[in-house]
Amino acid sequence: METLKVVKIGGNIIDDDAALAEFLKGFATLKGPKILVHGGGKLATKMAKSMNIEVQMVDGRRITDGDTLDIITMVYGGKINKNIIAQLQANRCNSVGFTGADGNAIVSEKRPVKTIDYGFVGDVKHVNTKVPKVLLENDITPVFCAITHDGNGQLLNTNADTVTSELAIAFADLYQVELYYCFEKDGVLLDVNDANSVIEDINTKNYETLKADGIITDGMLPKLDNCFYAISNRVSKVCLGKPDMLFNQNTKHTTIQA
Amino acid sequence: METLKVVKIGGNIIDDDAALAEFLKGFATLKGPKILVHGGGKLATKMAKSMNIEVQMVDGRRITDGDTLDIITMVYGGKINKNIIAQLQANRCNSVGFTGADGNAIVSEKRPVKTIDYGFVGDVKHVNTKVPKVLLENDITPVFCAITHDGNGQLLNTNADTVTSELAIAFADLYQVELYYCFEKDGVLLDVNDANSVIEDINTKNYETLKADGIITDGMLPKLDNCFYAISNRVSKVCLGKPDMLFNQNTKHTTIQA
Repeated sequence: METLKVVKIGGNIIDDDAALAEFLKGFATLKGPKILVHGGGKLATKMAKSMNIEVQMVDGRRITDGDTLDIITMVYGGKINKNIIAQLQANRCNSVGFTGADGNAIVSEKRPVKTIDYGFVGDVKHVNTKVPKVLLENDITPVFCAITHDGNGQLLNTNADTVTSELAIAFADLYQVELYYCFEKDGVLLDVNDANSVIEDINTKNYETLKADGIITDGMLPKLDNCFYAISNRVSKVCLGKPDMLFNQNTKHTTIQA
Repeated sequence: METLKVVKIGGNIIDDDAALAEFLKGFATLKGPKILVHGGGKLATKMAKSMNIEVQMVDGRRITDGDTLDIITMVYGGKINKNIIAQLQANRCNSVGFTGADGNAIVSEKRPVKTIDYGFVGDVKHVNTKVPKVLLENDITPVFCAITHDGNGQLLNTNADTVTSELAIAFADLYQVELYYCFEKDGVLLDVNDANSVIEDINTKNYETLKADGIITDGMLPKLDNCFYAISNRVSKVCLGKPDMLFNQNTKHTTIQA
């Protein structure tokens, strides 16, 4: 089986023009089939402010109302995604931008209202690999933003880490998939104040200890849950760290083991 | 040769949710390979206003500065394009949204500054059919907004009628291409105040007379120039009229003859 790299970049790269340009230059050189997934960064919040649209929060969670969904569609699916495509083309990496509606690639379900109504937020139901696969077979790189659709005409905001793990898992039928979550640190840190304390391997066993000891908390929990979800569903390699880990094998990073 | 329909819709449909929904429902039923191109409508101007970005005009022509290009990318490439894709999927028409950067499909050149600096406006240099062709062969409909790129990372605003004729001409190598410009009238009118005065055929000969007599003026001139450009470059059929002409053969419309 051929190897497919699925790479996710987040706000720390998206929000920094120079860092994004450097990353894309490197990403364009990666050999073999690859998929890029990008988060949104701070631009959507900035846009909402400039349009006097208030970000609604309930219990610390952001609510995606109609106006917010429009802004996300414009910023993630428009400005960020299309500028990434233009830059990849400049680096001779032929690519096509995707939401989950394009090619019917990611079908989701509007999150049911229990105690909180999250608004236009979608939980992934199904990934259709057909269209991105056709492109990969023609040396074209699909670039996904984290927007999905319900199949009935409604776009839905979806967590970018989840979109990434779901894509990786769906493609594990067709490729040997390597999943790379790029973020601002060299990996998961044993001591949050010590950049050199990267935990090189996390498996289901020490994960429980790390959680119990309060070393892995907050934002890292859903990210690592996505990692374990992928590695236990036939994704062959899952790594977290700075983008350098993609270009230099000696770069420290965290590897997730089943 | 198989027939490919290239269809352009403009602001009058884009700005009217019900009209757009009805059009897309019909478009989804069209048999055979097809490409949709959409203009922008009034939403970009509305967005610019809500963000306090002034539309710059020089000699009655709109200037695309950096902020305006961002809005166009967000509105045309994001909100409008992705909502069209979601609705086509709901109508079981598998489709993928494109700017000219996606798949490196439409390469343009920033318009050189002579007397007026139009800003980030691109004149089409080259159409690469490769990626949309791969999709068409897999029963996927490419949906283009009127944004192109210069191949060096810069997105550029481009006239939607021109994008449409350039796509039609490029695909005439591969398909028997029919080009349909949908707009608010039943075709080119002999008397602008009489909706029934549709000129059913315009050829290079009566076109000159119609122009000399002041019957074809203003906004219709560039549109018709695009029509003649297409029909004289191996596009087999060029029609102007209401979208109904696509779905009902008896609908009055204007046909362009070489």
